[in-house]
Amino acid sequence: MRYNAYGILQVASSREAQMIDVTADVSAFVRNSGISDGICHLFVPHTTAAVTINENADPDVVADMLMGLENIVRPGLPYRHAEGNSPAHIKSSLIGVSGSIFVNDGGLVLGTWQGIYFCEFDGPRRRSLSVKIVRTEHERA
Amino acid sequence: MRYNAYGILQVASSREAQMIDVTADVSAFVRNSGISDGICHLFVPHTTAAVTINENADPDVVADMLMGLENIVRPGLPYRHAEGNSPAHIKSSLIGVSGSIFVNDGGLVLGTWQGIYFCEFDGPRRRSLSVKIVRTEHERA
Amino acid sequence: MRYNAYGILQVASSREAQMIDVTADVSAFVRNSGISDGICHLFVPHTTAAVTINENADPDVVADMLMGLENIVRPGLPYRHAEGNSPAHIKSSLIGVSGSIFVNDGGLVLGTWQGIYFCEFDGPRRRSLSVKIVRTEHERA
Repeated sequence: MRYNAYGILQVASSREAQMIDVTADVSAFVRNSGISDGICHLFVPHTTAAVTINENADPDVVADMLMGLENIVRPGLPYRHAEGNSPAHIKSSLIGVSGSIFVNDGGLVLGTWQGIYFCEFDGPRRRSLSVKIVRTEHERA
Repeated sequence: MRYNAYGILQVASSREAQMIDVTADVSAFVRNSGISDGICHLFVPHTTAAVTINENADPDVVADMLMGLENIVRPGLPYRHAEGNSPAHIKSSLIGVSGSIFVNDGGLVLGTWQGIYFCEFDGPRRRSLSVKIVRTEHERA
Repeated sequence: MRYNAYGILQVASSREAQMIDVTADVSAFVRNSGISDGICHLFVPHTTAAVTINENADPDVVADMLMGLENIVRPGLPYRHAEGNSPAHIKSSLIGVSGSIFVNDGGLVLGTWQGIYFCEFDGPRRRSLSVKIVRTEHERA
């Protein structure tokens, strides 16, 4: 065990609303940690961004998700927050800023079609995604 | 400690949208693990399903939740994903695929009215729900 | 280590829908635990409340979030649940009853603008927020 199981990944968004696939980065972090079994916790230290897990096979899915969210969280309501980004704050809490994924046999355990997405709702910006792995020790039957 | 604290529960849905009460299964898994104190992590390895905790006393609540979600995530938008199940993907990320429940004294700690629900949004299908328990050791005062 | 890393915070709401900043209480719990490194898990043992992390600088943000949620989860649908609080149940599952925050150097690691909010959707009531810290041990490089 040579690596600390805590790190911060840098994510750069290029549009106002964007879902950025960070699966490879998180997966590399887990592999490099040397931890074979545990929970990989993700945390977004921002209030107009989020993290989620969804399909990474067809890019139309994330485009549809962003379009659907725009339809759900209406931009035209009488929001009071002067920055004008209240819908982005609401989307952040609907999707959530924390999540956790199992680590088995030294790697992330994701479903066949799953990828990890950093969700930008008020970009473009430079953002952070914090990662921390809690190691578990299993009894073998 | 005779059991491994990682397992996969099988869940079968019988309708397109359905909330299936898995409290008894998760609870039995925790009891059988022999772990007295920790965190029980749940993870759904699918992109059109989710896991949540809500009322399990009146079955009308989950019926209302599914109806309410159908109203929130509109089926008729100009989605591009060819499979036609974009609303199910959006519901999955709104509800979320990961969750955690405390384990105290060898059992799940749920509120009086709470149950754990596997949420099917694109069924009927056979699904999996992954469970992993992180053991904690408390200092006693 | 003199304190047990599990506790229950009491939260009193004074309105039907309210976001109550509990950052100071959770932060004090973490400091008092004496745990320097780990994950702080939050759990709401109720079915019409939730917990989230969002901006705590401008109070207009939480007012806008409650107004936006009211617009998203329509009160006037043909809900069947006799208590009449189905929208509150839906909001609870959309925002979520569990969350986790990193603990580094003996304190919570929150972004510059982030605070922890207990979300009341069916108040006023007396509520609980459960907190449990899982200690992690890092290897130092």
